Amino acid sequence: MTKLKNDTLLRALLRQPTEYTPVWMMRQAGRYLPEYNKTRARAGDFLSLCKNPDLATEVTMQPLERYSLDAAILFSDILTIPDAMGLGLYFAEGEGPKFERPLREERDIRSLTIPDPSRDLSYVMNAVSQIRKTLDNQVPLIGFSGSPFTLACYMVEGRGGTDFRQIKTMLYTRPELLHHILNVTAQSVVNYLNAQIESGAQAVMIFDTWGGILSHYNYQEFSLQYMKQILSGLRREQNGARIPNVIFTKGGGLWLENIAESGCDALGLDWTINIAEARNRVGDKVALQGNLDPAILFSTPKIIATEVEKILKDYGNGNGHIFNLGHGISQFTPPENALALIESVHSLSKKYH
Amino acid sequence: MTKLKNDTLLRALLRQPTEYTPVWMMRQAGRYLPEYNKTRARAGDFLSLCKNPDLATEVTMQPLERYSLDAAILFSDILTIPDAMGLGLYFAEGEGPKFERPLREERDIRSLTIPDPSRDLSYVMNAVSQIRKTLDNQVPLIGFSGSPFTLACYMVEGRGGTDFRQIKTMLYTRPELLHHILNVTAQSVVNYLNAQIESGAQAVMIFDTWGGILSHYNYQEFSLQYMKQILSGLRREQNGARIPNVIFTKGGGLWLENIAESGCDALGLDWTINIAEARNRVGDKVALQGNLDPAILFSTPKIIATEVEKILKDYGNGNGHIFNLGHGISQFTPPENALALIESVHSLSKKYH
Repeated sequence: MTKLKNDTLLRALLRQPTEYTPVWMMRQAGRYLPEYNKTRARAGDFLSLCKNPDLATEVTMQPLERYSLDAAILFSDILTIPDAMGLGLYFAEGEGPKFERPLREERDIRSLTIPDPSRDLSYVMNAVSQIRKTLDNQVPLIGFSGSPFTLACYMVEGRGGTDFRQIKTMLYTRPELLHHILNVTAQSVVNYLNAQIESGAQAVMIFDTWGGILSHYNYQEFSLQYMKQILSGLRREQNGARIPNVIFTKGGGLWLENIAESGCDALGLDWTINIAEARNRVGDKVALQGNLDPAILFSTPKIIATEVEKILKDYGNGNGHIFNLGHGISQFTPPENALALIESVHSLSKKYH
Repeated sequence: MTKLKNDTLLRALLRQPTEYTPVWMMRQAGRYLPEYNKTRARAGDFLSLCKNPDLATEVTMQPLERYSLDAAILFSDILTIPDAMGLGLYFAEGEGPKFERPLREERDIRSLTIPDPSRDLSYVMNAVSQIRKTLDNQVPLIGFSGSPFTLACYMVEGRGGTDFRQIKTMLYTRPELLHHILNVTAQSVVNYLNAQIESGAQAVMIFDTWGGILSHYNYQEFSLQYMKQILSGLRREQNGARIPNVIFTKGGGLWLENIAESGCDALGLDWTINIAEARNRVGDKVALQGNLDPAILFSTPKIIATEVEKILKDYGNGNGHIFNLGHGISQFTPPENALALIESVHSLSKKYH
C-alpha cells in the first residue's frame, strides 16, 4: 500500500476525521486554463486529447500545478464506453459530442456488446497508470464514468442537449429495450471502473448528468437501480486500500434519501439544495460532495470567500464534507477565481474540524 | 357576475368540491395541432399571431373545439412585457425568442419604465376581451405572465437556453441592478395581470420557467419574493367573482413549502415530484396543478390512461387538484394522445370526488 502525502479526500469520502475540508472541482482540467487550451491545440481536437495518454496526463496535472487541490481526476470523456461499443463518437466544432450511429433499431440494441477495457479502452487505462506515476502519491486520483442512464441518453438521442424525446418515447413504449441498453451499459461501467481501479484510480465517481430529467416514478427504475448494480459490482479495495465512490445525479435533490441508500460512500449535490438540509435528510449514511453554484466563480475573490463560508457553515462541524462545485467549472471562469475558491475552502474550513 | 357553464377549474383552484378533476394543458394552443399551424402560416410568424387579436382568439379556441378541456388559456407570449419596455422582441426562424437590445448597461437598466397595459399592450387586452366573448361562458379563461426572474433572464441574456452567465454574474456582482430590473418588472406584471383580469381573465398564472436554475440561497430573494409582490398586488375579485391564481416554478420541487406560503391559491408541479409527497408537504394551504411528464404523450392511449391513474391515485381523494402536464405540450405530440389524456382524466377522476 503506497502512502499518499495528502489523503484528505479519501478520508472525507469515508467520513473519517480530517484537518480541513478537502476540495476539488468537477472539470478542473479544462478550457478555463490557458495551458489546457495550448495542449488541446497540440492534440488537434478533444477526442485526440482523451485518447493520447501523454497529453491526458499533461492536462490532468495542470490544475494541480496551479492550485493546492486535494485530488486529481482522470482527464477523459464520459462517452468512452459507447464509443468502445462502436457508436462512433465525434465532436463537431463548437458543438457537444455526437454519435454517428445512435441506437434506434431493436436489432442494433440487441447486438450491443460489453467492451473489454484492457483491449477496447486501453488508452484510458494507460492514462490512469501514467497519471498515477506522475502524481507520485501527492494526492489521490479519481476515476469516473457516466451513469448508465446518462450514457443511454447520448446513445439513443445521438447527442446531448435535446428534448429527450427519443429516449423517453422508448422508456414509455419499449421499456424492455431501454432496460437492455441500461443493463449492458451497467455491466460495461463495472468492468471499466474496476479496470481503472486496477490501473491506479483511488476513488471513483459516477456522473448521472441526466437522471434529473426523469419523473419521480422512473428515476429509481431507470437510473438509480443501475447505479446500485454498478456499486455492488465495484472493487471496494485495491492493494489493501479502500476505494471510495461518489454518485451524483444533477437535479436529484428530491431523491436524496433513495440515493443515500444505494450503497454509495458519498453523494454529489448541485446548488439547488441547502447542504444543511441534505445532511439532515441523509443522516450519517454518506459523505456529501458539493455544492457551490459554479457561476459564483464569475464574481470576485471576496464574494467567493463569503459564499464558500456559507456552505461550510451550513454543513457545520464534523467529517464527511468534500467541497466542490455543483456542476463542472465554466470555461469562462477566470483562473484566479478558482484559486480564491480553493484557498478559501482550505483556510475557512479548519475551524469546523 | 356571469354564470359559467363549467366552472370546475375555478372551484378546484380554490379547493372547493368538484365532480371530477379538471384538466387543461400548458401550451394547449400550439404546434402539435395542424389547425394551429395553418393559422400561424396565415399570420406570417409567431409574433404577428400574438399581436393579432382575431388570430389569437382563433388559436386559443382551437384546442377547445377538439377536446373537452376545462379551461382556455390566452394565446400570447411570456415576453410581451419586455417587448413593451422597448427591448425589441423577435423570433429568428427555427430559434427561440431573442431581444435586439438586451439589458447590459446600468444606464439602460436605470431607465426601464413600466408599460401601460391599455396603451402598450392593448393587443393582449383586446385578445382577452375577444376570447371571453367567443368562449361565451363555456369554460373560464386563464390569463398569464412570466415571473420577474424568468423575464429578467431573457432581458439580460437576450435569449433563452443559455448558460445564464450574464444574469448570474449580475446577481453575484451587482445584485442591486438585478433587483432594480426585478422590481420594475414585478410592478409591470401586476399592472399587466390586473388589466387582463379587468379585460376578462378569470384566473391568472405566473410562469417561473427559470427560477429552478437559482441556488437555494437565491431563489427566495430573486424569484419568489417578486412573485409574492405580484400576488399581493393582484386583483382577487372582479365583478363579484374570485380570481384564483397559480404560480409555477419549474424545478422548484425542493422549495414547495416556501412557494405554498407565498399567498398563491395554487402551485404548479413538474414531473420530478410525486404529487402525494407534494400534497403532504404543503398540507391544505394551496391547490396543486400537475404533473404528467409531457413525454408520456408520445406513447399510446392505454399507457397514458395508466400514467394518469397513477397521478390521480397519488393525489388521492378530495379537492384541490387540477390535472396538467409538468411542462408545455411538445410540438411532436399526436393530437389523439392529447384527447386520450383529457378523456382519461375525466373518466378516471370521478371516483376520487
